[in-house]
Amino acid sequence: MHIVYKSDPLRGAHWQRWLAEHAPDIQLHIWPETGPTEQVEMLIAWQLPENLLATFPNLKALMSVGAGADQFDLSEIPPDLPVVRMIEPGLTQGMVEYVTFAVLGLHRDIPRYLRQQREQQWHPHKIHTAGERRIGVMGLGELGQACLKQLVALGFDCAGWSRTQHKIDGVRCWHGDEQLAVFLARSDILVCLLPLTDDTRGLLNAELFAQLPSGAALVQVGRGPQLNDDHLLAALDSGQLSAAVIDVTAPEPLPVGHPFWRHPAIWLTPHIASETHTGSAVVALLDNLRRYQRGEPMIGMIDRNRGY
Amino acid sequence: MHIVYKSDPLRGAHWQRWLAEHAPDIQLHIWPETGPTEQVEMLIAWQLPENLLATFPNLKALMSVGAGADQFDLSEIPPDLPVVRMIEPGLTQGMVEYVTFAVLGLHRDIPRYLRQQREQQWHPHKIHTAGERRIGVMGLGELGQACLKQLVALGFDCAGWSRTQHKIDGVRCWHGDEQLAVFLARSDILVCLLPLTDDTRGLLNAELFAQLPSGAALVQVGRGPQLNDDHLLAALDSGQLSAAVIDVTAPEPLPVGHPFWRHPAIWLTPHIASETHTGSAVVALLDNLRRYQRGEPMIGMIDRNRGY
Repeated sequence: MHIVYKSDPLRGAHWQRWLAEHAPDIQLHIWPETGPTEQVEMLIAWQLPENLLATFPNLKALMSVGAGADQFDLSEIPPDLPVVRMIEPGLTQGMVEYVTFAVLGLHRDIPRYLRQQREQQWHPHKIHTAGERRIGVMGLGELGQACLKQLVALGFDCAGWSRTQHKIDGVRCWHGDEQLAVFLARSDILVCLLPLTDDTRGLLNAELFAQLPSGAALVQVGRGPQLNDDHLLAALDSGQLSAAVIDVTAPEPLPVGHPFWRHPAIWLTPHIASETHTGSAVVALLDNLRRYQRGEPMIGMIDRNRGY
Repeated sequence: MHIVYKSDPLRGAHWQRWLAEHAPDIQLHIWPETGPTEQVEMLIAWQLPENLLATFPNLKALMSVGAGADQFDLSEIPPDLPVVRMIEPGLTQGMVEYVTFAVLGLHRDIPRYLRQQREQQWHPHKIHTAGERRIGVMGLGELGQACLKQLVALGFDCAGWSRTQHKIDGVRCWHGDEQLAVFLARSDILVCLLPLTDDTRGLLNAELFAQLPSGAALVQVGRGPQLNDDHLLAALDSGQLSAAVIDVTAPEPLPVGHPFWRHPAIWLTPHIASETHTGSAVVALLDNLRRYQRGEPMIGMIDRNRGY
């Protein structure tokens, strides 16, 4: 089977060597090298080439190298072509680390202490237990559920919200538009792990922030266009929100001069919460290729109607 | 039984009410109120009163409200008077939260990203997996073991070191002066949870830092006098250490103008990593009082020879 990889070439070279050893029947070509284009069954990419189907007329599936496929313009992809997101343990573990870091930091008032440090103030504040802190995770897919498992283990009072109903041990789950308000009203720290869709674009706005408890904090690890930057700044400046940890922005890189860079209540990182891990992702990739060969559904198939 | 409490009066009032309900045979007096001083069997304190035994001639034990008893001058306390530290789940949980926060933050390069934020630089760095990060915890008591359990669960490559031999699941343990060098040589992130004793005073110095891998990081949650401040600053400035998260200093509060306040590679918090939790500590206290009444050894008894 011929497959083409179009993303970071260093990772591609690793995958090529690994597949040559573990699955010699699969030939991975690293873009712009393509092998016999009419025999290519799978494209694994971050950004699509122009004229996708003219280039690969017999493509059977399109795979994203990332946790989302929102960077693809689905309207340009034939509706019957399967699109698959990357689900692999390295990506999940990285997100668990980042979200746990951010939630613990906000829970323990560290942004406030680092501001005090700059002002040379030694001033302890009351410590709250994890059980007194209500965490709300929006988005209950692979990443959201893994983060909740760690946060529950740390003793936080955890809830989740997503489009559809979920059941997660130790987590109070809400779903749908009607139940969003009750979920928000009890989220002292709100973690956004939603996929980017028409429904979630601009969702993190003044209306949503107003429904959180006063002084709540935000961890934004979804996608940049979900956040209304001006509304966040207003909520921070009014005190409705106390702090925000932001890993994704629109656009990326965030332009020099954007107010997020200098805001004392914002911790900004350059989209590093998690990334596909070269070593573990190729194992997940091969598993999916074998599923495809056996005619089984692949892991991470996107529902074109819901957009993720 | 009469006992006297000498520390934060708000916590004392809570304990007094709780004991009145759950153990009416125990009368807790809040200093400076003492009840019948010759009948007081136990003093629970952070700082001792002057003339301890003249004040309480029939004292049977002395309890610290904190995780350590180093604030007591043991030379002024009769050698046969039992001294007991506070071991209670709230204190442990707080330390697990803080250490997990600090280790994850250092592991994921967050101090560097926050410096980049100030310079408006969007510049991602390579992500390392937890399994590639070697954590070393010095001090393997209640707190050290609880922190290691969480760090092992997150997938870190964990080791421990203490004065005496320990065996901890998933953790490579070393002990004693002879094995310190091999432990330090593999600690990318060093966490100090040692008690303050004559042996640990000044232990975190240039000689120790030089034995860590180049670019290692420090989490100092032991006691302030263990750290040589000038040596830390030199190690950070030379690059031998890349960052430090410091919760304890000597003295406390850290004086205005001390270089830690302004150092770009230091995160400083005002001794808030953990504190005795009012609600859970009184349960642990009562358990120890019942042990004492039954003639059993109390939890957290200090070995006067080793000093902790």
